Amino acid sequence: MKLLIVGGVAGGASAAARARRLSEEAEIILFERGPDVSFANCGLPYYAGGRIAQRDKLLVTTPDRLRARFNLDVRTSSSVESIDREKKVVRVRNTVNGQVSSESYDKLILAPGAAPITPSIPGIDLPGIYTLRNLQDVDRIKSSLNAGVRHAVVVGAGFIGLELVENLVELGISTTIVELQDQVLPPLDKEMTTPIVNLLRSKGVNVILGQCAEAIEIAADGLQVHLKSGQPLIAQMVILGIGVRPENKLAVDAGLETGVRGAIRVNEFLQTSDPDIYAAGDAIEVRDFVLESPTMIPLAGPANRQGRMAADNVFGRKLRYRGSQGTVIVGVCNLTAAATGASEKSLRRADRRFRKIYIHPAHHAGYYPGAEQMVLKLLFDPQSGKILGAQAVGGLGVDKRIDVIAVAIQAGLTVFDLEQVELAYAPQYGSAKDPINMAGFVAAGLIRGDHPQCNVEDVLSIPVEQRPFLLDVRTPTEFSAGQIPGAINISVDELRSRLSEVPRDQQIAVYCQVGQRGYLATRILRQHGFNAANIGGGYKTYRLYCE
Amino acid sequence: MKLLIVGGVAGGASAAARARRLSEEAEIILFERGPDVSFANCGLPYYAGGRIAQRDKLLVTTPDRLRARFNLDVRTSSSVESIDREKKVVRVRNTVNGQVSSESYDKLILAPGAAPITPSIPGIDLPGIYTLRNLQDVDRIKSSLNAGVRHAVVVGAGFIGLELVENLVELGISTTIVELQDQVLPPLDKEMTTPIVNLLRSKGVNVILGQCAEAIEIAADGLQVHLKSGQPLIAQMVILGIGVRPENKLAVDAGLETGVRGAIRVNEFLQTSDPDIYAAGDAIEVRDFVLESPTMIPLAGPANRQGRMAADNVFGRKLRYRGSQGTVIVGVCNLTAAATGASEKSLRRADRRFRKIYIHPAHHAGYYPGAEQMVLKLLFDPQSGKILGAQAVGGLGVDKRIDVIAVAIQAGLTVFDLEQVELAYAPQYGSAKDPINMAGFVAAGLIRGDHPQCNVEDVLSIPVEQRPFLLDVRTPTEFSAGQIPGAINISVDELRSRLSEVPRDQQIAVYCQVGQRGYLATRILRQHGFNAANIGGGYKTYRLYCE
Repeated sequence: MKLLIVGGVAGGASAAARARRLSEEAEIILFERGPDVSFANCGLPYYAGGRIAQRDKLLVTTPDRLRARFNLDVRTSSSVESIDREKKVVRVRNTVNGQVSSESYDKLILAPGAAPITPSIPGIDLPGIYTLRNLQDVDRIKSSLNAGVRHAVVVGAGFIGLELVENLVELGISTTIVELQDQVLPPLDKEMTTPIVNLLRSKGVNVILGQCAEAIEIAADGLQVHLKSGQPLIAQMVILGIGVRPENKLAVDAGLETGVRGAIRVNEFLQTSDPDIYAAGDAIEVRDFVLESPTMIPLAGPANRQGRMAADNVFGRKLRYRGSQGTVIVGVCNLTAAATGASEKSLRRADRRFRKIYIHPAHHAGYYPGAEQMVLKLLFDPQSGKILGAQAVGGLGVDKRIDVIAVAIQAGLTVFDLEQVELAYAPQYGSAKDPINMAGFVAAGLIRGDHPQCNVEDVLSIPVEQRPFLLDVRTPTEFSAGQIPGAINISVDELRSRLSEVPRDQQIAVYCQVGQRGYLATRILRQHGFNAANIGGGYKTYRLYCE
Repeated sequence: MKLLIVGGVAGGASAAARARRLSEEAEIILFERGPDVSFANCGLPYYAGGRIAQRDKLLVTTPDRLRARFNLDVRTSSSVESIDREKKVVRVRNTVNGQVSSESYDKLILAPGAAPITPSIPGIDLPGIYTLRNLQDVDRIKSSLNAGVRHAVVVGAGFIGLELVENLVELGISTTIVELQDQVLPPLDKEMTTPIVNLLRSKGVNVILGQCAEAIEIAADGLQVHLKSGQPLIAQMVILGIGVRPENKLAVDAGLETGVRGAIRVNEFLQTSDPDIYAAGDAIEVRDFVLESPTMIPLAGPANRQGRMAADNVFGRKLRYRGSQGTVIVGVCNLTAAATGASEKSLRRADRRFRKIYIHPAHHAGYYPGAEQMVLKLLFDPQSGKILGAQAVGGLGVDKRIDVIAVAIQAGLTVFDLEQVELAYAPQYGSAKDPINMAGFVAAGLIRGDHPQCNVEDVLSIPVEQRPFLLDVRTPTEFSAGQIPGAINISVDELRSRLSEVPRDQQIAVYCQVGQRGYLATRILRQHGFNAANIGGGYKTYRLYCE
């Protein structure tokens, strides 16, 4: 067996190591266009900002170590330029000396990754404009930072964009972030990103949404970025974090099938349209595990596992890749935002029926010091209760809850299963009724009909005169600190004795702070014959929509 | 519907609140023997130690709040003394004034909890000896601490015992912990508790295993505890954390069926042998979710959910309790120990076939600062790979991994599913190959036969002359810092060129530091015809057995 692997980072390096473990005899050649293999690209923003102090920390392994330990033929600075599928030969160009050679294969694994998108706007090639994909990129950014940057513009508010902003802010650089969509962190639903925008603004970041850069030019004090709105931004550094496109040229030129956004199409065994060629990592099309549609989900975790699995299948294993869920996470200055599975947006786009709930729990028992708040949104099938997706934003414990739901989605669990999840509880770790259980209770109550809920955005979208009777069941103190316009205040503890103040001929939309008292009030009202529903997630969810 | 509930803490209070949400009309009376309802018993050790500063933080709710919000008839200081099942009447004694009354019921929910076990040894009733179940207990302990305690003895090294020790150490009290078993934290397997014992000893705690108190007497400087070994311990305070027994007297006297350790027997609907009487919480017998045998698992999480479900079923819902997994967690001075599902011990006792693996991962990417180590043990079915249990001990991230595996167990997932789990990865939260994936890889490799493993304790139990050839594949530096006696050192990177030094006529037991290089070395050796297996978890696991 002679196995060639194109790409030496996440997917490629995993494939190579796995292949060697499976076969001591195989000839395994790993081609990497750049000078480094297996570097930690997810660490680049933190090296740029200095939190990761040493550059060599980012080198998970080195070509020499791969050679010594795995007996691999590692060829860096080697760009695979073309594949002759008939002859089963690739043509390789040495990027240092330009020499071209060819190498035959029995099997080929493509792990070329994805490249940052650069928009074709005037001035895009000016010095001071960067993308961030590899160590050479971060070296350029760091030397620019060392030369002195007072103002920076980050274009794109996805994961890398936000991570860069966090690091720039920590360096004391006045930072603007520009995002084409009307929200940061587009994989999440917009309302869930409100806390991130609030946090960024509180840190002095200039957050500009619904805008894009139309041109960049040299100005007296660095670069001037022109937005579509006409607003000029001055910066000494512009970093593009707009997104990535699959490195598909090699595959396309070789006539391999591609799919969504040009990603290399593979079957469930990670085999391309040529059975001797496998592909893994950011460049491939995958099946969306929840929506069951083809998509592209460039993430380090899946890339590593795909690389490993591609090698397994090269050696005849027939392992099936189950698809990707898009489990993602980002940290922005003590705030964590994470998601798994489908979002409300993606469900709407796919025309899938769903219901949603919001809860606002503390990450551990409130009576133990240090409890941090989060908001958790759960999306599920309105009939079966099958979990479709979740998003959470807050402090500690967000990662844990999203990981728990990620496994629940993988296992096909329902909200009824979440009611009975038995998680580890001591007061410094969780709650006797964990946020996961609470989400299950609320969602199951909704499906069972115990707990009719309405969405705050639906209520607000109704013309004022046609809106349901808005009943705020919090305390007068909470009410006077801020309420949904038009609401009447009767605290839940007084509701039973003040039922006469609630109209019988009108729909009642009840709310409290987070949804729990509203739930009890809804139960009280419905049992007394009122047509009541609870505004899911209460006033805190309203604020997510209205801030 | 007239519903009586006996016990106003976790299970009882949950049942009462749920019952009211289900029915505004029902007459609901909640009897609690003590003065408080719904207090946070899991917080008691932290209030004793002062980390929870205010006593009223422990009062999750109050009788008045339950009355106002849930329209409940809450009767504290009310001990239900007997049940006349024929007449459907209970007899209640007011513990303050001694008055006896009776109350009829349509349905009854028993949530009496469990009481600390006190051994019948001489001197057990002396002043200065405490148990810890409720606020009155912790008040006594706190006033004793305030009076000045220099030496304390904690009897029993379970959850409460360890939490108390942590708090006593923080208060600067010289503390001894005495445990009858030969390990602390008996729900875990012994080797997994080595880091806890090491930590306690490093903090100056006197850890005495395999011993029990035989008598306590008054000494010049407080109390003298006599151990079976004859060793005397002097202390001004002795706290018993030996375990709990179900408060079953009421149920037994009423002729209700009981089971394991006298726990109240219920069916899957949480119904006792009397269909009008339900039971929930620490006093009931539950089905062990993994072993499928009856057991008693007194934990706050299950108690709360059972109380809620008992109320559901009283009102005709027919919800099934799926059993308890025993998901547990304890924090001891920056160390976290957690477990879910079956332990190796419990699997052996049940004569169930299993395999196990150990990994020693960091809680997040090693290249990002602050990664903390853990050891994770996974138990699974040797054929199907179904996950049977897991234990982890270490720093940050232990709770997350055990929670993820808890859900995997609930869902009946296998180690092959863990290979494909897609968890949230950014370098400050996890790894591209998360510890959960790694556990899946190692376990699946074992079942597939890629990765034959042997247990270090099995190797060590063989007489020295019959042991396999012990091959340490770490670097010479690691080897010289400590090795398994009798091992020969050939580092994995040199193994291919030094195969002639490895005997062909002998079984080879390979090991490295954590198992990963040993795995590669095992692959190399087997493919060259050697009869090799990897010592699972490597030298670090060996140390767990040998420290």
